[in-house]
Amino acid sequence: MDYLVMVPGPTNVPERVMNAMLTPIINHRSDDFRNLYKTIVSKTKQVFQTENDIILLTASGTGAVEASVINMIRKGDKVVVPVNGEFGNRLADLIDAWGGHAIRVESEFGENPRIEAIEEAFEKNEIKAAYAVYNETSTGTTLRYLEKIGELCSNKGAFFIADAVSILGGDELPVDKWNIDICVTASQKALAAPPGVSPLSISDKAKKYLKSNPPPTQYFNLARYFKYFEENFETPFTPALPLFFAFNEALDIVLEEGLESRIKRHATCADAFYSSLSTIGFEPFAKLDARSNVVIAFNYKDGMDDSKFRTLLSEQFKVLIAGGFGKLKGKVFRIGCMGEVNKYHVMRTVSSITSVTNMMNAKTTDEPLGIAAEKLKAIP
Amino acid sequence: MDYLVMVPGPTNVPERVMNAMLTPIINHRSDDFRNLYKTIVSKTKQVFQTENDIILLTASGTGAVEASVINMIRKGDKVVVPVNGEFGNRLADLIDAWGGHAIRVESEFGENPRIEAIEEAFEKNEIKAAYAVYNETSTGTTLRYLEKIGELCSNKGAFFIADAVSILGGDELPVDKWNIDICVTASQKALAAPPGVSPLSISDKAKKYLKSNPPPTQYFNLARYFKYFEENFETPFTPALPLFFAFNEALDIVLEEGLESRIKRHATCADAFYSSLSTIGFEPFAKLDARSNVVIAFNYKDGMDDSKFRTLLSEQFKVLIAGGFGKLKGKVFRIGCMGEVNKYHVMRTVSSITSVTNMMNAKTTDEPLGIAAEKLKAIP
Repeated sequence: MDYLVMVPGPTNVPERVMNAMLTPIINHRSDDFRNLYKTIVSKTKQVFQTENDIILLTASGTGAVEASVINMIRKGDKVVVPVNGEFGNRLADLIDAWGGHAIRVESEFGENPRIEAIEEAFEKNEIKAAYAVYNETSTGTTLRYLEKIGELCSNKGAFFIADAVSILGGDELPVDKWNIDICVTASQKALAAPPGVSPLSISDKAKKYLKSNPPPTQYFNLARYFKYFEENFETPFTPALPLFFAFNEALDIVLEEGLESRIKRHATCADAFYSSLSTIGFEPFAKLDARSNVVIAFNYKDGMDDSKFRTLLSEQFKVLIAGGFGKLKGKVFRIGCMGEVNKYHVMRTVSSITSVTNMMNAKTTDEPLGIAAEKLKAIP
Repeated sequence: MDYLVMVPGPTNVPERVMNAMLTPIINHRSDDFRNLYKTIVSKTKQVFQTENDIILLTASGTGAVEASVINMIRKGDKVVVPVNGEFGNRLADLIDAWGGHAIRVESEFGENPRIEAIEEAFEKNEIKAAYAVYNETSTGTTLRYLEKIGELCSNKGAFFIADAVSILGGDELPVDKWNIDICVTASQKALAAPPGVSPLSISDKAKKYLKSNPPPTQYFNLARYFKYFEENFETPFTPALPLFFAFNEALDIVLEEGLESRIKRHATCADAFYSSLSTIGFEPFAKLDARSNVVIAFNYKDGMDDSKFRTLLSEQFKVLIAGGFGKLKGKVFRIGCMGEVNKYHVMRTVSSITSVTNMMNAKTTDEPLGIAAEKLKAIP
């Protein structure tokens, strides 16, 4: 029996998408590739809800986020960064290391920083850009006021860059409507393709800036990608062809389902997880208004051992979930509720977690499966 | 009918290797992945003929070469770089852009710079490192005295970094014997895996340096890769799992054939290409002592149109070869003679090129196929 992969990326990948990787190798300097790339770009625009340009990198999401920093930030630039988890921290650290000045607007993990504190940072400083992690994978929180940061940047003439690596395709994210200059995601999260391809959308304003300020490196130099795309519909460096074929197929699946249905399915599955596991005494890590629909984090009950819990889940039930990391290591478990997640995934995960909790003598009396099943009726 | 892919990477990928990509997605923070990574590292060491550490990046070869620069070069560092083609140029440019000072030791394209000129550069300057492109893919030349640069670096206490992207697995390259501190290659060239994974071998001396001088970025920060590998046998960022499975299978094929046989097979196929196509009036671009066994470049005959030639080859014979690039665009064609290249590939390519040359009325009277067949008898 294969694993049910319920970690927050990589996710289970549909057979259609896996099989697309078997497409025979083509020359990446040929019309075959040019047509593939054009098709992927066109579909990616639909999924991003944008008219902006799209660049695809052969790299993980971290690589694409880094590309957004090294192309847009120069020495001394002041940058507002909401920080409420490890990925926000990592982003702010990268901006500082690269010579920028990250103005961290912090909150407790599990909550979102107050929007007023972000507004204040804009009022007190000459801000070049705001960088926001839309979904903080380390804590299972979503920054629900992304649109407001977009408005703020738009009004102040600042760039707005969204790290949407773990969420795009699984929750609302109309890139143009929310004034996002650069939006970054990755293939292996809510888009359910294998890892290794990371798309970015780039506004005309950002494109103009980065073309006239190229960074001192090559692989993530976005001006090079524009040059090759605009002249020949090619990538400057050899693309990971099988992953491009797979990503193309994954985009078809997203568009066939429709974004609206897909987002609703994620919300319903998330609701089922939160509701059902709460009844056996697990407390969601995130506050209600910050809870993510794509990464579900729960506190362990007192005395429950992380390693024992996840080993039992994996070895006895073939269900893979993630632990916490950074300062949450051992304190929370996290479920990836993304990509092709459906009612069978939720039921099997909830059932297995209930059984393992039982085996570890940490169960309360309520029965979560009926609750999950009731919630999941909302999925057609 | 599938294409016969004879471009200088990506190459044809054996079915075993393609099928390995269908291995179901695993958690990259699990023993399943740790065991995979350990296995790949161990096999890669054998193929590199090294006891040094191995790091695998999810990126093209250019990305891995860039990693070798940004981790080892700091502002003002003097670096010797032999330059006789586009990739040597690109490497020297990257070193300069990153703040180093590349001392270019140049020669005409198609020749190798004199080793004495490299020795002279070492004598006149305080050299931090030498960077050498072992096989210059743009011109089909191989730097036959790599070992001597290794000796020179070793004697002078400089680092020696080899860009072996398009050659490792297809020609001699004993990394430790030749004193190479960092050796970089990529999956889709002579190792015949799909593109997207790039391994580097790193000596203790280089590791010590880069751990104490981390660059201001994350994705190519090799100290991070060491930390994750040494603590947990993991990668710091999500690896392109299907490509890791495929690369693992490709390494098995290399080790089953044996490095020595594999290198001999490449040499025999190269000999067959050079000998046979010379008889119908094509002149190898590279001088005899610089000719590559993995990338075969020929000058076009007067009046032959590059685009027409390659379009006929592709559309009438399903054989893909490459044109020239940079200043050689339109002047040469290049054949990838790498990876799983065998006598059938050579015969079909030579036959198709002969036919197309005929169709373009550029043929001379000799018959190349008998010559190629005779040479190819050396392959068991």
